[in-house]
Amino acid sequence: MSHPTAPEHEGRLAEPGRVETFSDGVFAIIITLLVLEIHRPVGAPGKLAGEILKAWPAYLAYALAFLYVGIIWLNHHAVFQYIGKVNMTITAMNLGGLGLVALMPFPTGVMADAFRSGNLADEKAAVLLYALVVGLMSAAWLPVFPYLGRHPELLKPGVNKATMAAQVIRPIVGVISYGLAALTGWFIHPLCAIAFFVFMVAYHAVTSQGVPVRWKS
Amino acid sequence: MSHPTAPEHEGRLAEPGRVETFSDGVFAIIITLLVLEIHRPVGAPGKLAGEILKAWPAYLAYALAFLYVGIIWLNHHAVFQYIGKVNMTITAMNLGGLGLVALMPFPTGVMADAFRSGNLADEKAAVLLYALVVGLMSAAWLPVFPYLGRHPELLKPGVNKATMAAQVIRPIVGVISYGLAALTGWFIHPLCAIAFFVFMVAYHAVTSQGVPVRWKS
Amino acid sequence: MSHPTAPEHEGRLAEPGRVETFSDGVFAIIITLLVLEIHRPVGAPGKLAGEILKAWPAYLAYALAFLYVGIIWLNHHAVFQYIGKVNMTITAMNLGGLGLVALMPFPTGVMADAFRSGNLADEKAAVLLYALVVGLMSAAWLPVFPYLGRHPELLKPGVNKATMAAQVIRPIVGVISYGLAALTGWFIHPLCAIAFFVFMVAYHAVTSQGVPVRWKS
Amino acid sequence: MSHPTAPEHEGRLAEPGRVETFSDGVFAIIITLLVLEIHRPVGAPGKLAGEILKAWPAYLAYALAFLYVGIIWLNHHAVFQYIGKVNMTITAMNLGGLGLVALMPFPTGVMADAFRSGNLADEKAAVLLYALVVGLMSAAWLPVFPYLGRHPELLKPGVNKATMAAQVIRPIVGVISYGLAALTGWFIHPLCAIAFFVFMVAYHAVTSQGVPVRWKS
Repeated sequence: MSHPTAPEHEGRLAEPGRVETFSDGVFAIIITLLVLEIHRPVGAPGKLAGEILKAWPAYLAYALAFLYVGIIWLNHHAVFQYIGKVNMTITAMNLGGLGLVALMPFPTGVMADAFRSGNLADEKAAVLLYALVVGLMSAAWLPVFPYLGRHPELLKPGVNKATMAAQVIRPIVGVISYGLAALTGWFIHPLCAIAFFVFMVAYHAVTSQGVPVRWKS
Repeated sequence: MSHPTAPEHEGRLAEPGRVETFSDGVFAIIITLLVLEIHRPVGAPGKLAGEILKAWPAYLAYALAFLYVGIIWLNHHAVFQYIGKVNMTITAMNLGGLGLVALMPFPTGVMADAFRSGNLADEKAAVLLYALVVGLMSAAWLPVFPYLGRHPELLKPGVNKATMAAQVIRPIVGVISYGLAALTGWFIHPLCAIAFFVFMVAYHAVTSQGVPVRWKS
Repeated sequence: MSHPTAPEHEGRLAEPGRVETFSDGVFAIIITLLVLEIHRPVGAPGKLAGEILKAWPAYLAYALAFLYVGIIWLNHHAVFQYIGKVNMTITAMNLGGLGLVALMPFPTGVMADAFRSGNLADEKAAVLLYALVVGLMSAAWLPVFPYLGRHPELLKPGVNKATMAAQVIRPIVGVISYGLAALTGWFIHPLCAIAFFVFMVAYHAVTSQGVPVRWKS
Repeated sequence: MSHPTAPEHEGRLAEPGRVETFSDGVFAIIITLLVLEIHRPVGAPGKLAGEILKAWPAYLAYALAFLYVGIIWLNHHAVFQYIGKVNMTITAMNLGGLGLVALMPFPTGVMADAFRSGNLADEKAAVLLYALVVGLMSAAWLPVFPYLGRHPELLKPGVNKATMAAQVIRPIVGVISYGLAALTGWFIHPLCAIAFFVFMVAYHAVTSQGVPVRWKS
């Protein structure tokens, strides 16, 4: 932004600054709104200590949702470390991904409600919904890395195409894992799906700086 | 911002950074708040799967509203690609446009409610309200492009005045289309208005990088 | 931010970037939350058109509140055009001012409710509350301009001290006007206060680029 | 961000710009949402003045919460004045700290409710909850300063390691004070805890530019 250039002369590429600012704003709002899900305990006078303790599932849900959205932000952050320029396609892909992340509080809340009620059929429906949304979130990243690999002009100097091509493994693992979560959660037991969900949070955390490849640059 | 200069000596022009940051913040908040419109299904235990499926209009409304606000943001983004400096007039025009975009969830929600209820008179009133708000959104851009064409000092080097002058076709198409949507929606059938609304989302998507002109620079 | 320097060596001055980003975020949230005050009309089927028309005071309140917060943002924007560096004092002053701006929806809503109910005693109490909050908002700017005038190292090159000293007239006019609004609103009639409030919106709009002085630089 | 470099060649260090933008967004949202806690007075016509006056605890709570979150932001701001580059560890630490700050409205609201009800057992539970959350907030900063001291490559030129090492005293004072607040608040009287909380706001305000050390650079 500090070096304005004629957009026409460089094929309408732009600095990624505004896309990052916008994405950071969306992530900041999503992550901050999560706390609104923790309701103040209401009860008879003198029973507050007990009420606070009984609400532990809400704290756990807050911590996990914050962790997950935070890790997705770290992943987003890491991908944009490679990107030197954005064009309309990358901007639109990013927007689609944000739209799915912004949806997160909905399936998370549905799942928390279902497990609180303890009805098995509802738990199955809830994990299916959750697997669908997070599976779509992974699928949204599928075209991003191959696209970046085919457009080296969007990458920062020194980032090679092989690095980008290697990253596609992450959304592939995501789509497969969430597919298996949906199948096992529906046909076997909802807790199978939960196991896959926890695994994917850990997987995203470990690989948040990108899958390593032998650098060739 | 990294090259501070005396504001008095350059006619009070400023870097567009803060205007973009502010605009991105407003867009990020609008787009994130949309998900709050999807309410968690409430129903008898064991009926969750059915409840989730029955709520499909809410998902559709979320997807469409996200798409529309996202496209408006892309358009905003594309316009600021041309702008190298802002003055108070452009800043005020931008503020007015944002005020109308921020209003979007209101007519969208009214229209969704009206079509759910299925009352023809209500549907007509709702599409009229929607056409009015989005028509004003288009009208807010009418003076922007001629103004930029008359003030080349606000444009980045290499952006010529003809490019800016050509862009005015977009808000003109918008105002006319939304006017026709209002007329046909009220006097013929609300679905006529819906057809115009869908057409305009597509039109804004296709032209989001600006209407092409033969470059003269 | 792009030219990191040792904070110790320059008396702990910092680039104003983060203070501006933070302020823009607060303004963006305040201005976007205003639309949540417009509630969807609820009524018998077929009565929607009438319900929408009857809600005109809500649209007017939205437009005015958006205009006022927008003008305050323009003023904030204009002041930071002069500022090249920030220290802790300016940052703390800015924070206090934002805290009062963030409060705006509260007295605005109270005043709207009071005028809808039409009780004269309530209207007097409401204009007094409003005058107090916006008067404090003006008062928060009183020390800013003299402070900037005494610390030319915070100003961008070419901005002279006389310019800053001249700006203090604006918060002085604000404090006096809102004081008169409170007095006349309480002892004569609430509409007297409204007249002062409208005058101040116009005054802030007209002087949003700063009070002109004969440049000496 | 204006000088893109190959991330691989510098050990995956990044400009702190995005981390600051994201943090500022979270702080801006938290601080702006506080005003939503002030509810419009509801009462019989003609009683508005009295209702407004009776709600003074809500104004006090707003002012204090705004002050506290503002001071935490100033502290965050001051720490990032020293930081020239961020890596994944600092980014993750920052995220954890933000997650605890975002939690603030919850224990604050619980404490306000408990003191309004006046039940001693509830007040004790509320100050314990508050001490736990703000104690964790302090504890989250414990590893940051030693880590920065061990990684001078993350610091801006001219910031020496001793400066960073000295800053760890602040979270240590925080953890000890909040621990004492919990103990005295539970075993003696809740007001003992309040005294520690007020002391810590003052301590954070006074030291918000960092604990001074004799500069050696």
